[in-house]
Amino acid sequence: MDLRELLEEVKNNKLDIDSALDKLKDFPSEDLGYANIDHHRQIRNGYPEVIYCEGKSDEHILGIIDKMNQKKSNILGTRCRKETYDKIKEIYPDAEYEELSKILKIQNQDIINLGKGKIVVVTGGTSDIPVADEAYYTAQFLGNKVERVYDVGVAGIHRLLNKRDIINSARVIIAVAGMEGALPSVVGGLVDVPVIAVPTSVGYGANFGGLSALLTMLNSCASGISVVNIDNGFGAGYLASMINKLD
Amino acid sequence: MDLRELLEEVKNNKLDIDSALDKLKDFPSEDLGYANIDHHRQIRNGYPEVIYCEGKSDEHILGIIDKMNQKKSNILGTRCRKETYDKIKEIYPDAEYEELSKILKIQNQDIINLGKGKIVVVTGGTSDIPVADEAYYTAQFLGNKVERVYDVGVAGIHRLLNKRDIINSARVIIAVAGMEGALPSVVGGLVDVPVIAVPTSVGYGANFGGLSALLTMLNSCASGISVVNIDNGFGAGYLASMINKLD
Amino acid sequence: MDLRELLEEVKNNKLDIDSALDKLKDFPSEDLGYANIDHHRQIRNGYPEVIYCEGKSDEHILGIIDKMNQKKSNILGTRCRKETYDKIKEIYPDAEYEELSKILKIQNQDIINLGKGKIVVVTGGTSDIPVADEAYYTAQFLGNKVERVYDVGVAGIHRLLNKRDIINSARVIIAVAGMEGALPSVVGGLVDVPVIAVPTSVGYGANFGGLSALLTMLNSCASGISVVNIDNGFGAGYLASMINKLD
Amino acid sequence: MDLRELLEEVKNNKLDIDSALDKLKDFPSEDLGYANIDHHRQIRNGYPEVIYCEGKSDEHILGIIDKMNQKKSNILGTRCRKETYDKIKEIYPDAEYEELSKILKIQNQDIINLGKGKIVVVTGGTSDIPVADEAYYTAQFLGNKVERVYDVGVAGIHRLLNKRDIINSARVIIAVAGMEGALPSVVGGLVDVPVIAVPTSVGYGANFGGLSALLTMLNSCASGISVVNIDNGFGAGYLASMINKLD
Amino acid sequence: MDLRELLEEVKNNKLDIDSALDKLKDFPSEDLGYANIDHHRQIRNGYPEVIYCEGKSDEHILGIIDKMNQKKSNILGTRCRKETYDKIKEIYPDAEYEELSKILKIQNQDIINLGKGKIVVVTGGTSDIPVADEAYYTAQFLGNKVERVYDVGVAGIHRLLNKRDIINSARVIIAVAGMEGALPSVVGGLVDVPVIAVPTSVGYGANFGGLSALLTMLNSCASGISVVNIDNGFGAGYLASMINKLD
Amino acid sequence: MDLRELLEEVKNNKLDIDSALDKLKDFPSEDLGYANIDHHRQIRNGYPEVIYCEGKSDEHILGIIDKMNQKKSNILGTRCRKETYDKIKEIYPDAEYEELSKILKIQNQDIINLGKGKIVVVTGGTSDIPVADEAYYTAQFLGNKVERVYDVGVAGIHRLLNKRDIINSARVIIAVAGMEGALPSVVGGLVDVPVIAVPTSVGYGANFGGLSALLTMLNSCASGISVVNIDNGFGAGYLASMINKLD
Amino acid sequence: MDLRELLEEVKNNKLDIDSALDKLKDFPSEDLGYANIDHHRQIRNGYPEVIYCEGKSDEHILGIIDKMNQKKSNILGTRCRKETYDKIKEIYPDAEYEELSKILKIQNQDIINLGKGKIVVVTGGTSDIPVADEAYYTAQFLGNKVERVYDVGVAGIHRLLNKRDIINSARVIIAVAGMEGALPSVVGGLVDVPVIAVPTSVGYGANFGGLSALLTMLNSCASGISVVNIDNGFGAGYLASMINKLD
Amino acid sequence: MDLRELLEEVKNNKLDIDSALDKLKDFPSEDLGYANIDHHRQIRNGYPEVIYCEGKSDEHILGIIDKMNQKKSNILGTRCRKETYDKIKEIYPDAEYEELSKILKIQNQDIINLGKGKIVVVTGGTSDIPVADEAYYTAQFLGNKVERVYDVGVAGIHRLLNKRDIINSARVIIAVAGMEGALPSVVGGLVDVPVIAVPTSVGYGANFGGLSALLTMLNSCASGISVVNIDNGFGAGYLASMINKLD
Repeated sequence: MDLRELLEEVKNNKLDIDSALDKLKDFPSEDLGYANIDHHRQIRNGYPEVIYCEGKSDEHILGIIDKMNQKKSNILGTRCRKETYDKIKEIYPDAEYEELSKILKIQNQDIINLGKGKIVVVTGGTSDIPVADEAYYTAQFLGNKVERVYDVGVAGIHRLLNKRDIINSARVIIAVAGMEGALPSVVGGLVDVPVIAVPTSVGYGANFGGLSALLTMLNSCASGISVVNIDNGFGAGYLASMINKLD
Repeated sequence: MDLRELLEEVKNNKLDIDSALDKLKDFPSEDLGYANIDHHRQIRNGYPEVIYCEGKSDEHILGIIDKMNQKKSNILGTRCRKETYDKIKEIYPDAEYEELSKILKIQNQDIINLGKGKIVVVTGGTSDIPVADEAYYTAQFLGNKVERVYDVGVAGIHRLLNKRDIINSARVIIAVAGMEGALPSVVGGLVDVPVIAVPTSVGYGANFGGLSALLTMLNSCASGISVVNIDNGFGAGYLASMINKLD
Repeated sequence: MDLRELLEEVKNNKLDIDSALDKLKDFPSEDLGYANIDHHRQIRNGYPEVIYCEGKSDEHILGIIDKMNQKKSNILGTRCRKETYDKIKEIYPDAEYEELSKILKIQNQDIINLGKGKIVVVTGGTSDIPVADEAYYTAQFLGNKVERVYDVGVAGIHRLLNKRDIINSARVIIAVAGMEGALPSVVGGLVDVPVIAVPTSVGYGANFGGLSALLTMLNSCASGISVVNIDNGFGAGYLASMINKLD
Repeated sequence: MDLRELLEEVKNNKLDIDSALDKLKDFPSEDLGYANIDHHRQIRNGYPEVIYCEGKSDEHILGIIDKMNQKKSNILGTRCRKETYDKIKEIYPDAEYEELSKILKIQNQDIINLGKGKIVVVTGGTSDIPVADEAYYTAQFLGNKVERVYDVGVAGIHRLLNKRDIINSARVIIAVAGMEGALPSVVGGLVDVPVIAVPTSVGYGANFGGLSALLTMLNSCASGISVVNIDNGFGAGYLASMINKLD
Repeated sequence: MDLRELLEEVKNNKLDIDSALDKLKDFPSEDLGYANIDHHRQIRNGYPEVIYCEGKSDEHILGIIDKMNQKKSNILGTRCRKETYDKIKEIYPDAEYEELSKILKIQNQDIINLGKGKIVVVTGGTSDIPVADEAYYTAQFLGNKVERVYDVGVAGIHRLLNKRDIINSARVIIAVAGMEGALPSVVGGLVDVPVIAVPTSVGYGANFGGLSALLTMLNSCASGISVVNIDNGFGAGYLASMINKLD
Repeated sequence: MDLRELLEEVKNNKLDIDSALDKLKDFPSEDLGYANIDHHRQIRNGYPEVIYCEGKSDEHILGIIDKMNQKKSNILGTRCRKETYDKIKEIYPDAEYEELSKILKIQNQDIINLGKGKIVVVTGGTSDIPVADEAYYTAQFLGNKVERVYDVGVAGIHRLLNKRDIINSARVIIAVAGMEGALPSVVGGLVDVPVIAVPTSVGYGANFGGLSALLTMLNSCASGISVVNIDNGFGAGYLASMINKLD
Repeated sequence: MDLRELLEEVKNNKLDIDSALDKLKDFPSEDLGYANIDHHRQIRNGYPEVIYCEGKSDEHILGIIDKMNQKKSNILGTRCRKETYDKIKEIYPDAEYEELSKILKIQNQDIINLGKGKIVVVTGGTSDIPVADEAYYTAQFLGNKVERVYDVGVAGIHRLLNKRDIINSARVIIAVAGMEGALPSVVGGLVDVPVIAVPTSVGYGANFGGLSALLTMLNSCASGISVVNIDNGFGAGYLASMINKLD
Repeated sequence: MDLRELLEEVKNNKLDIDSALDKLKDFPSEDLGYANIDHHRQIRNGYPEVIYCEGKSDEHILGIIDKMNQKKSNILGTRCRKETYDKIKEIYPDAEYEELSKILKIQNQDIINLGKGKIVVVTGGTSDIPVADEAYYTAQFLGNKVERVYDVGVAGIHRLLNKRDIINSARVIIAVAGMEGALPSVVGGLVDVPVIAVPTSVGYGANFGGLSALLTMLNSCASGISVVNIDNGFGAGYLASMINKLD
């Protein structure tokens, strides 16, 4: 922390007290009234700035993007409505959009490869793909090599075992599953790397919007597994990136 | 149904009307005031009579056994307290007791082999054994060949795959698991026979007394699986027997 | 398993090691990228191939059907939207559709009668029919004789007792009920064959989307009952078929 | 209401204003500091005074009984611990105690027969008896003719049908059941009188302390059924008495 | 029961055995395939026949009405969609409809006054009116004098106390409330007649679709209260009628 | 209370008994049939009259406003639909509307500043603004100075710490947060004034419509915090006003 | 904040930089390793220091008291076991203990009357007293005049109305209730001051450990009510004190 | 995988087919009947063997330890009862025991430092220490440098901020909290390394055995956080170790 420097400048009269008080308050966030943007996180860890678009009006989203874009940050939007993207595209023609996972990407800088190894994203079924792709594109945009292995649920265990080579090549695994949500347990038993489990709200009946899969994953008897919120592909992709850049 | 015989006897004056009315009421149950015993089910399907001991006083249990014993039925007691068994043992010296699963057996007749094939009981862990054994002894006492494969949970999938021969030899499978409860899904994907899933209350944290395993099993994406109540080893053993005696 | 043959071919130089490794991986599933189709299950047990259509795009469904159809399999689709069926119908004019239960059927081969006895489907009310019909058509398409007894809920017990002959003629019973879900308990007390209970989400108030009926069924004090997920008519029909083909 | 009398007395100067204000406040309850006893309810409807003993100290219970006894009321205690009863017995030698249902009775006056017809209490199983007996003794002490029909659960429907005569003779029915709790639905379909359903916490697994039976009863598709709280035998007995004294 | 007559006819050869068997099966229900109508209940207790319209197709509803109408029964439809009513109106021009409570009435006979006293329906708020009116019209159509007292929730206790005269004039009270659902407790403390509590799904936040009000009512510490399902105005009206016709 | 005056008037023959009885019943509410309006509360505490518009028809709302307006009260409507407002605006051209928070205001009198200090409303995120603004406008219309500090959630703690001056200047704080709902705990630890916590239904996955935030706030280990219902901005604003006018 | 003073001292060389850095870190908490004690809160707001004893070992509790006592603070312990108190009493002979509410008090200084008005604590029943007393003694020890009104639950509304004078004299009300938890709603409708609702875990059946009362209170339709956690008498007493000392 | 070697040995006649078949089955687990021990995991990743002691009999635990000890593995036991430890200690005098966290350690080999950085364990309160220590000793025994920062909950945010240096020095953070469980969110916002959140069952009222903290953590709006099961300190310690040994 440069608090010492600040104090030294005060001592040496390079900085008057009011300015010092000001700077002490000056954390690197910018107040738009309806939002406080945190620019320095991106600088600090080399990551893009992120907007969680759900529940925000188009005007707010455009306002936030505008501020971010002035810093020439890379920008990642999650849960971005197609209609919102269309408006963004008009102003930022380079904006890209992944329709299934509702990921928005505005790339103002080269993506630096921060990951030390490979992240592998596996899913139990075809219907888990939107959540899995949210994790996939997030991790990719945060500078990782990512590989996908989809529809390898435990009710046909050979489909998973057939993909053991890819799974064994991972430094971090993201296991996405709805319904009974047992995939992370089986994967966790096959590998010796961290497994991030993502329950999805896919299923019906006593699935309770993903609660069933969530409980399964929390109760996994395999070691090395942790869980993020239901359908939270972004969270899994972000955490996997954090782990993968450790050296 | 012998209703026709009864009517014919009435018509032919072999039976007067009041006796007929009486007999029409006379379903094969015996009223002890605090309990209605159903003797004929045992005769009808060759099964022992069953007492669910939990929540019944020793006096009631002894009273029920007394009535059953007069018919020389085989008697199966579930959730029988050790202290209760000790009292029973004094009166019925042939009574046997399985301490782990709390199963009481009084065998007054030879057990007839009613099963057409083999029932296999598998568990996810060591702690599921009490419930699994309840299923095991129930199915055995109901006239089945039963085999046990314990501690083959999905977090070490090779342990289960190593036992594929036994699993493939089953006509019906009982899969018992607590914690994440994923075992039936994997087993169900390996075989083409009915799988009866038994969630157990084994686990901690967000296990909620077996609810987690129950939901997992209900949401299984493998076909051919159905579920009984949490810790209901008896129910699974009984249903497996019913299926196994089909011809 | 033909692992021995494979090993013998390797030993006898009929198969080089790389091909052997390849074959060892070659489980009978086909990877479409977004889906792994398991063709051999159909061959192994004489059943049609099944697509769970809910949550899959029309494109994915058509792609999967295309692959299945190349094998001349019978194809059963569940939870198939009417609009999807209309597209399928254009390409496969023989495709049939049951509107109430949303069942899609493409019959490329004769249906072999695999069932040893009769499956009877009973419902508590008129509103349970969509789920019951899903079970009915599934069991029928899997090669069973199936009979329906609808609207015989326990609040008018004579309606059920009037149908005892049909119920007693079953080898397996599927009991479908919403609201209080007590039908399987009463049916289970009347027969000595397996009863598969299907809770439906029919009802209102403290029904909680079928949870009430589900809990009732799990807590049934009748023996020989097991439960599938809420509204899971397909699962019940499939399991009933599995039990019914046991010999 | 004698408010008019009071006002007239004020007008005629028979009552000064401060006394009138006082009387207006004077509702017929007696404040012991830790409890407010409502003596007049007993007088108003001919019922005993009731103490819910659970969660009250012996001292408080004795204090309340003392006040009630001074009015020579009949006293009904529910959920009374055996140890508490022993202390009460020393002071009030006429006090009676039903051990199974934990009912305390101190009879200072003859019980007047207030009921116009008969109340019938039915249970699904033997383990529901403690709750059923709480209803039975309550209704009896409140001046009703009550009959018991126990262990006639729906999984053996003939046991219940055998007792139709008694059931049909009731003016009000209390149906007590745990586990799946389906008894009130079947009973409700057989009779044309009000059925008070009492869920019990009897059962295990996904019974959740009686929640399963409670939901079943609330979702009953039979008409004429209402539900009291889990294990609330007193409430059912009290309500049945209220209904039975209507003329 | 006329079983004795039947047996006597058999004995006297007035009835051959096959016809007798037939008649024994012949409970007074009529099987439409998709529905079993119970005509005799209406005759037995002088009530109209009832159709629960929700979840039934217009065709089914019209089919059921047609059968009922042939008997010249009075017909009460609950949860009847406006569009369905419009179709019914075309065929049965006398059909009436209460839009707020979605009650359908076809009156083919005079309504006989079966109630011995008055039923009073109270609500906590204005938004509870649709459910309360369902109870009101049901009780009225079943031959009761019914009075309404609306918007007298406990947060303004004087509003309720102002209506004590009406409340005290009731033989049975139906108390309808959403949000915190405390109305029945307060009402139950003011009167000595049965109170039927109806929780409504009115409210927001931690109301959970009426669960909050349901739990409040089940846990009421006032005696003489029982509860029907959330929003089940019909059930309350029907039960109140049953109680009110007791003599 | 002027009960004494009333009694004195009776005594002095200024008031005849029937009028006195009438007045005793005459609590200051007005019965519209479908609603009981409580005019005097506004007079008693200087607050506007409030209509909770959700679940009320436009006709009812207009009827209630009409009665209120006759007293020249200020009127606050919550959860007012835009379409309803448009109708109101035609009749009451001075009516104002806050679109985000759905607040309706009709100001017939000057707003008196009743608050002794400042109320500060803080939110965790941008999406909590609709609920926060409901609190803001409510408190303002009830005569308070209110300040807003938005998007200062705990995951970027410096954003909150930067606003300590404003937070420390409050006499009462309203802390609005969805997702994990931790904001009130942190705020509560920073200040020595009452904190009213408002959970919002903002979030996804295991958020369960605000339940997650609600539980967090109830379990807060900071002292001086209490909680209102999920999304209940009005309740928080009203309570804050009540506290703020204490002197 | 004296940050400016600190900076001025640095500038004027009255404080060297390392000391300044030290002081900047020096928040007024004391780290015992297993606990961080916050001495200055007591000084800041004139309150005693508080130990939540549940879940802490006697050794830890004694260690914490020792540190607090060195400052001559007043000390309030909540949920203090009797055995723990006995150990404390040996060392601090002035320690006092309220057995019912498990409150520990060590008074080292005079209690300053900080409250501007009176706090009134009301309960629904006798069994709510332990929680209510926790609130009572907390508020008292924090310098308030507090009055208790117990056993005035809504099922006997006149008991509450009889106490209106006391209730109307309060500046803040704490309303404690279990079972249906309706007391705060009724109280909230009678007064114009803040009501703090405390649900208790008193009750049985579908009470779910106080959840029923909690939901009731959150859904209250009376304004001016907020809720603390189940059984959290301390929290209510603390918050009431905070509100009561506002001027 | 050495499958290729195996095949080459078969080809080269170094291995006969039956032995090859045998070896193919020979996964590195050892079947004790009641347990399947997986020795090679320890060898594969340099970790100790782990026994989850809860729900296992002393005999089973001793049997498992015996097998493990023969391999001279390091052995870590979790949730080990004190009585069990006493028996173990007699046989293995080097066994160590951490009483608070119930951790058993038998060290047969030097612990190799596998961690690349430091793991920091933080807790919200003193009562979270048993769970936190389970994580601490697990991570330490798995070869990590671990530091503890206890009692720094968010309600006194300065206590946490005072420890920023230690927190910033971590490569992985384990954040343990009960009650409102907000600690991980705040920590997650302060650092750029993975945070493993552990909810504890510490708290009361609407805490629901840790569910409240669990939901808070799953809903955290800070990025880089994942969650393990309630009270699962071992799981957190294991996962942290896995992450910390990545290079």
